[in-house]
Amino acid sequence: MSDLKSTFLRFYSVLKQELLEDPAFEWTPDSRQWVERLVEYNVPGGKLNRGLSVLGSYKLLKEEQELTEEENFLASALGWCIEWLQAYFLVLDDIMDSAHTRRDQPCWFRVPKVGLIAINDGILLGNHIFRILKKHFRGKAYYVDLVDLFNELAGGVSNSLREMIDLITALEGEKDLSKYTSSLHRRIVQYKTAYYSFYLPVACALLMVGENLDNHIDVKNILVQMGIYFQVQDDYLDCFGDPETIGKIGTDIEDFKCSWLVVKALEQCNEEQKKVLYEHYGKADPACVAKVKVLYNELNLQGVFTEYENESYEKLTTSIEAHPSKSVQAVLKAFLAKIYKRQK
Amino acid sequence: MSDLKSTFLRFYSVLKQELLEDPAFEWTPDSRQWVERLVEYNVPGGKLNRGLSVLGSYKLLKEEQELTEEENFLASALGWCIEWLQAYFLVLDDIMDSAHTRRDQPCWFRVPKVGLIAINDGILLGNHIFRILKKHFRGKAYYVDLVDLFNELAGGVSNSLREMIDLITALEGEKDLSKYTSSLHRRIVQYKTAYYSFYLPVACALLMVGENLDNHIDVKNILVQMGIYFQVQDDYLDCFGDPETIGKIGTDIEDFKCSWLVVKALEQCNEEQKKVLYEHYGKADPACVAKVKVLYNELNLQGVFTEYENESYEKLTTSIEAHPSKSVQAVLKAFLAKIYKRQK
Repeated sequence: MSDLKSTFLRFYSVLKQELLEDPAFEWTPDSRQWVERLVEYNVPGGKLNRGLSVLGSYKLLKEEQELTEEENFLASALGWCIEWLQAYFLVLDDIMDSAHTRRDQPCWFRVPKVGLIAINDGILLGNHIFRILKKHFRGKAYYVDLVDLFNELAGGVSNSLREMIDLITALEGEKDLSKYTSSLHRRIVQYKTAYYSFYLPVACALLMVGENLDNHIDVKNILVQMGIYFQVQDDYLDCFGDPETIGKIGTDIEDFKCSWLVVKALEQCNEEQKKVLYEHYGKADPACVAKVKVLYNELNLQGVFTEYENESYEKLTTSIEAHPSKSVQAVLKAFLAKIYKRQK
Repeated sequence: MSDLKSTFLRFYSVLKQELLEDPAFEWTPDSRQWVERLVEYNVPGGKLNRGLSVLGSYKLLKEEQELTEEENFLASALGWCIEWLQAYFLVLDDIMDSAHTRRDQPCWFRVPKVGLIAINDGILLGNHIFRILKKHFRGKAYYVDLVDLFNELAGGVSNSLREMIDLITALEGEKDLSKYTSSLHRRIVQYKTAYYSFYLPVACALLMVGENLDNHIDVKNILVQMGIYFQVQDDYLDCFGDPETIGKIGTDIEDFKCSWLVVKALEQCNEEQKKVLYEHYGKADPACVAKVKVLYNELNLQGVFTEYENESYEKLTTSIEAHPSKSVQAVLKAFLAKIYKRQK
């Protein structure tokens, strides 16, 4: 395990313990046990990339100076806030999506005796973030910006909108493919992935080194672009990736997802191909899925993707190199290197 | 309609309109329409007592000086934030409780095409609060305290805990009356009613006049006590009030609620009466309900309540009169006058 990861992991139990001992919650033994299980089940089991990247980015911004124990702790705490945020999203999303499993275990709301209490549990996880921030950052000059940042990204805008758009689009329109445009795709992705997986960790690290986020709109734009590129890769791999490598069998076509692939297909197809798409997209029948895949091949979407990938990489590199600060460049390049040409 | 109320109501559409035009949300026409309906359906239809009391309390703290239009707006905006908060609570609570109606209309999640999207809608309503605060209070010295206050009360602690305690108690324990103690009742009520219906409006008004809430722990304690007294009245009226006057037929006994009445009954009954309670509390059968009511009468709970009411009133009055500030006294007395000996 990397040093970074072991440092980061070390602080999880500290934060959890503090929450479980927080007098504001007036725990009873039953409720403390419940919340401990809730946190254990939902917070630490992911890949932790988002959380780790706060600590990683902060280190880069400090130009590899040795961090003090306090700096390690604070950067890790913000990283864990993002992991808590992720848990909050997932617990609630899974209910709305009627999902079955998450990280190879049943979704929290499907655990016996949980059910719709999971709504409350999700909100509780979201609230933990503000307890952590208040406890450890209340005295910092950037406290209010931090709270604003999490309120904006976490508290709702992003998540809410994302799901709202997802759902209104998928349900209200009674499967109307004509709504699936580049602009809708960008909007969904922006809220679903880009803001909180890419921008949020860097924004946290920037606040910690004393930067004003209003002066870093360019960094935000680059990271949002990178997040969109990341999600396009995801959409691509769902259909064309190796299930062994990505660890799951994609079902975006069956699920009528507003995937980058279907958006591109709609942009490039002729009237006849369009009919094929309208007829077969979003159906569970494997024969329908196969027809959609044949069409994707006819339209050479693999080639279109490769072109998009190269173009994105070049544009991002150019924007990054135009940034005045070398340490900010290093942060952005580290992100880009992690995702460029990824196969999983 | 009182002047206060008409002032307050005037600003609702301003706030709603601002949210619908907030560029952060990147509305599509569909989503804007959806959110307008969500807000209209859930926010303004209540009694608005909580919201009005911010404006009322602020006026009293300013010792009846004529308020400027800006002061009227800001105090009303905070009042509306509390109403938004209430809407957020109710939308989510109703899902968890599988409730059917709310304010004489179907619960939001029961409206056609809404369903579990209501989870997301609830979170969105919660998020609106932070948009309103940011837009209108970001420059104020008390902004960070305001956000902390709402995060603490709204974002979760209170609500989450309340439901958690409610539900863990009612469901997990498989209807175990022995859990229903004064201490549990106080904990539930504190989060369910006292903090956000009593303390929050006054805390908002205090922040607006530049007070530091840390210096007003006594005000908080008085208001929390008042909130508990209010909820005890509610529990009492559910069983002994006039359904015509209170506008509903109480079902706390049937619903196995942790009501003040059952807590008192458990404290005062002998072994035989205890058996009756354990056997009949929480059953829908009207014969069971009747047995519980007979027992309440045997135990003279009406008398116990009257004594509690008088004692509470005296204690509260003494605490209020001990407060050094006449204007704070006026705020607290106004609250107390509104609820003392209420019949509905």
